[in-house]
Amino acid sequence: MSLIVQKYGGTSVGSPERIQAVAKRIKRWSDKGHEVVVVVSAMSGETNRLTGLINATYATGTAREKDVILSTGEQVTIGLLSLALRKIGCAARSYTGGQACITTDSAYGKARISGIDEANMQADLALGKVLVVAGFQGIDVGGNITTLGRGGSDTTAIALAVALNADECQIYTDVDGVYTTDPRMVSSARHIPIMGLEEMLEMASQGSKVLQIRAVEFAYKYNMPIRVLSSFDEGDTGKSTLVTSEEEIMEEVLVRGVAFNRDEAQLTIEGVPDQPGVAYKILGMIADANIEVDMIVQNASSAGFTDFTFTVHRNDYDQAKQILCDLGEEMGAKVCRGDDKIAKVSIVGGGMRSHAGVASTMFEALAKEGINIRMISTSEIKVSVVMDEKYLELAVRTLHEAFELDRV
Amino acid sequence: MSLIVQKYGGTSVGSPERIQAVAKRIKRWSDKGHEVVVVVSAMSGETNRLTGLINATYATGTAREKDVILSTGEQVTIGLLSLALRKIGCAARSYTGGQACITTDSAYGKARISGIDEANMQADLALGKVLVVAGFQGIDVGGNITTLGRGGSDTTAIALAVALNADECQIYTDVDGVYTTDPRMVSSARHIPIMGLEEMLEMASQGSKVLQIRAVEFAYKYNMPIRVLSSFDEGDTGKSTLVTSEEEIMEEVLVRGVAFNRDEAQLTIEGVPDQPGVAYKILGMIADANIEVDMIVQNASSAGFTDFTFTVHRNDYDQAKQILCDLGEEMGAKVCRGDDKIAKVSIVGGGMRSHAGVASTMFEALAKEGINIRMISTSEIKVSVVMDEKYLELAVRTLHEAFELDRV
Repeated sequence: MSLIVQKYGGTSVGSPERIQAVAKRIKRWSDKGHEVVVVVSAMSGETNRLTGLINATYATGTAREKDVILSTGEQVTIGLLSLALRKIGCAARSYTGGQACITTDSAYGKARISGIDEANMQADLALGKVLVVAGFQGIDVGGNITTLGRGGSDTTAIALAVALNADECQIYTDVDGVYTTDPRMVSSARHIPIMGLEEMLEMASQGSKVLQIRAVEFAYKYNMPIRVLSSFDEGDTGKSTLVTSEEEIMEEVLVRGVAFNRDEAQLTIEGVPDQPGVAYKILGMIADANIEVDMIVQNASSAGFTDFTFTVHRNDYDQAKQILCDLGEEMGAKVCRGDDKIAKVSIVGGGMRSHAGVASTMFEALAKEGINIRMISTSEIKVSVVMDEKYLELAVRTLHEAFELDRV
Repeated sequence: MSLIVQKYGGTSVGSPERIQAVAKRIKRWSDKGHEVVVVVSAMSGETNRLTGLINATYATGTAREKDVILSTGEQVTIGLLSLALRKIGCAARSYTGGQACITTDSAYGKARISGIDEANMQADLALGKVLVVAGFQGIDVGGNITTLGRGGSDTTAIALAVALNADECQIYTDVDGVYTTDPRMVSSARHIPIMGLEEMLEMASQGSKVLQIRAVEFAYKYNMPIRVLSSFDEGDTGKSTLVTSEEEIMEEVLVRGVAFNRDEAQLTIEGVPDQPGVAYKILGMIADANIEVDMIVQNASSAGFTDFTFTVHRNDYDQAKQILCDLGEEMGAKVCRGDDKIAKVSIVGGGMRSHAGVASTMFEALAKEGINIRMISTSEIKVSVVMDEKYLELAVRTLHEAFELDRV
């Protein structure tokens, strides 16, 4: 017997029929003697419906009240799924984020989990109940409802798995695992049955849609194995991607996959005085506005002036540009500009740690196709480049082929 | 400066536009220097949408999970109204039932308020904020979400008004007050500008749609004045019905109005042994199922056997009949039957206390029209009769005329 945390996204619970199918799957796990904790998102379309109501009432909104409204989406799903489970004879109990004692900070709309008191849940598990927990939400110390922002339900699932000391965290999506790249873009993309958490972290942070970075960071930090499965796999064929610690991985490959991301925007400030603390001043202002910065490049100083370029999520672009340009004016910067028509493409693989030459193969392949690189960022196991958005598909196809990812 | 509790029903907050209109009205009160606490229902149609999802998932449902789902309707409204208030420069803060510390028993779907801890709300009022509280909901001592059932938002409003020691509880609806009877049924019905709480209690319990009985009971118990107003009265003409303690009413009239109710069903058990405790046994079983009984009639005993007839809400009819007939079989009753095609019509007026002959005038008027009376029930200030549903409109018109309610 093991304790499994399962997470079902919005498409998986998109209708009463889909919810009933999910209930049957949960019951199969429960009937095998596993303890099951389920985390669910809002039914697909529901968050858009609620956002529409918010916008019709108040275009910009107040974060606290937005979270009060948006959190109802998951609350409806936990109730419906618990009903569906009871209908087929499976004892179940729903938990809102607050009832599951998931406490967060007070950064409405993008709150971070600060702790989980699992006592009530442990008591219900001991009674043989399936627990159905609302993803994406928590409460702050003042009892205010918060939402976790993008990918929040994955984060909830992994945080619960860690708090409850689960054996595995299963993320059910509309795909049956991770591929060497998005199969909708490159038809020869191959399924990856097992990969490292660190690789997944880089894949996720590069925008591979399967898992969200914050969730994988959480799993990596606590060494929690994640299994990605399809909730549409009615036959339980078992096709999945297990994402686990590097030690569990036998075969370390040079390049595991090609990730890409068109959700970013680039911001540049030129000709700011090159003084100690200038980077902190610029990026500190952005961080204070709770905007996450992804890539950062600073040019070598020339004649006492320096340039910064960084990327943020496209949703934060307008706000970040306003902050940057106000600051630029104050600091006497020469130019402040941005571009939200960019895309980022990355190659990721644990084998890069011990092999040189991967980056140059990448740049060569892109150059051959005439793709201009606008920014470069590297880590131990990935190389990312930013380019004009229009080159995205070509770049992904080119790199997938260059690293022979279509070959077994 | 006074403290006003306002309640807006589902139609009043039925769209983002309506919510903005409500926000403007609230701001007018706030700008005059009043402290304002607002209680809102779910947007009209929302509860039906959620009920549809519940039924599509599980026809009979589990009460706890239903409440988890249904309570989201009000939660969306409090968020939207708070946004609309902030948009027009009015500091506002939303409260779910749990955040307002409205504790209830655990009778899911028809919970009763057991207490309110108003400390947090008092603190926010002291900061000059408008409080927007979700009606119809609370939490039990275990932190489970409960709903108050029919008319729950009115009850929330009056309970809050009592807890906060408000000067007046304003109930905004789609009508501008109470009439001598439903103007849609009798065009000569007159508006009542002021009436007694006890009269309103009888009017409400007889199904006058404006206020719900539990809310008025609450107001009566704590002597809280209620003002019924129309949320569609954009000009603030001030037309309303003030429902207040009898001492405030100058003119005590014989018959204040004609109320009616087609939401009831009649149940009869005949030929049960006439022993001490038999009424308790029968009605105790019904009460244990959390079904409210309205009228009760017991016939005089004949040859050691007796008959009972009582009425319940039509929604509870099937369940009540099942309980009654199972019990009847066990007790050896001769007949167990029911009828859900009945209607109840009542005349209500504080003046009845000191005047005889009102009931006979009523029975005479009905007899003249050939309307057969099936049950009679009286109190100090009302007389109710049950008849076949088909006679309802005729009976109401006849009584409205017989007591000259169309004349000023």
